[in-house]
Amino acid sequence: MDENPSPDFSLDFREQLIALFRWRRDVRRFRRDPLADTTRNRLLATACLAPSVGLSEPWRFVIVSEPSRREAVRACFERCNADALTSQTENRASLYARLKLAGLDDAPCQIAVFADSSTSQGHGLGRQTMPETIAYSAAMAIHTLWLAARAEGIGLGWVSILEPATVSSILDVPSNWTFVAYLCLGYPLAETEMPTLMHDGWETRRIPEAFVLHR
Amino acid sequence: MDENPSPDFSLDFREQLIALFRWRRDVRRFRRDPLADTTRNRLLATACLAPSVGLSEPWRFVIVSEPSRREAVRACFERCNADALTSQTENRASLYARLKLAGLDDAPCQIAVFADSSTSQGHGLGRQTMPETIAYSAAMAIHTLWLAARAEGIGLGWVSILEPATVSSILDVPSNWTFVAYLCLGYPLAETEMPTLMHDGWETRRIPEAFVLHR
Repeated sequence: MDENPSPDFSLDFREQLIALFRWRRDVRRFRRDPLADTTRNRLLATACLAPSVGLSEPWRFVIVSEPSRREAVRACFERCNADALTSQTENRASLYARLKLAGLDDAPCQIAVFADSSTSQGHGLGRQTMPETIAYSAAMAIHTLWLAARAEGIGLGWVSILEPATVSSILDVPSNWTFVAYLCLGYPLAETEMPTLMHDGWETRRIPEAFVLHR
Repeated sequence: MDENPSPDFSLDFREQLIALFRWRRDVRRFRRDPLADTTRNRLLATACLAPSVGLSEPWRFVIVSEPSRREAVRACFERCNADALTSQTENRASLYARLKLAGLDDAPCQIAVFADSSTSQGHGLGRQTMPETIAYSAAMAIHTLWLAARAEGIGLGWVSILEPATVSSILDVPSNWTFVAYLCLGYPLAETEMPTLMHDGWETRRIPEAFVLHR
């Protein structure tokens, strides 16, 4: 069936894979150097190796280059972020206001990701009781892109402080596409092992055991 | 801030990473050899390195070992799969009936994954307009687990042909947890580069360019 022999992943590779997971960051501070189109396209092709429910490949990537659309997305972020600030407690609002939560001004490459919930690809397999697996498939494609990008020194930031209906309208996409994420891509100003929100005092990681139950 | 130097990922590592993406499979045929608890726990700790909205770490892993609960999950799958078969077109029903869609009988390790949509961790950051990012974070933790497992020759199968409310009830989890996936883990009977659904003639992959738009 397969022409290639199954790869044998060495202990060294596995240790580096863990390092990749540890050093993947949600990047909000980018250098303005451009990202080559060939690099972007290669990363998108890699993203398509992600798992998808019923092999439905429901991810849809919208490369956003037109200045007016980028500006409209940025304005949407500003409005949503101002709203989010008002919903923070008095204690945390000043800290929230100091956080940098998106790299929309500097990131040279911006990609909106949608999930096509009406795709006939996959013939509905695996999603009759859980249609949300279509969006989960798109989320895993983003994660694949994220890891592949980081492995070549390219940073990715996931912007979720946006109104999905507004973004869909700005980008004029089919109405049956679900907005999943707006991605900023480019070369990061710095590489760190610690999550930015932890460095900035917003939140800390818990130990993995805190998330495990037995039944 | 960080004590460790930023890792430099070699071209060789990046090529192996692509091979890992290519050879990750949704495994439905497992050997019955047990998976060591220490291995499972290590993989779960790796999964917790996934990105999460606002550092909310909303993933909740329920290790399912009690035979009566496993049997109830299996019965739920059988019912949902029988329903799914009836919704297939006449043309595709016989092919659907021949597909093996879950490794519930043989997989030595079974883990249900939930997302805690009510967690206060992360203080709501990044999810006010998109609460679904909580479930997306859990999906990316599953994908992290999947890749780490495959790198050490362990297979993972994602079962989505289940009724979420029934699984939540079987496993007696808090009512504010969203069911995301039921995972089968163990050593695969075979390792292949081609997706099982493609080998079995159910669906084919499209070229990546089919999923890209410009705006």
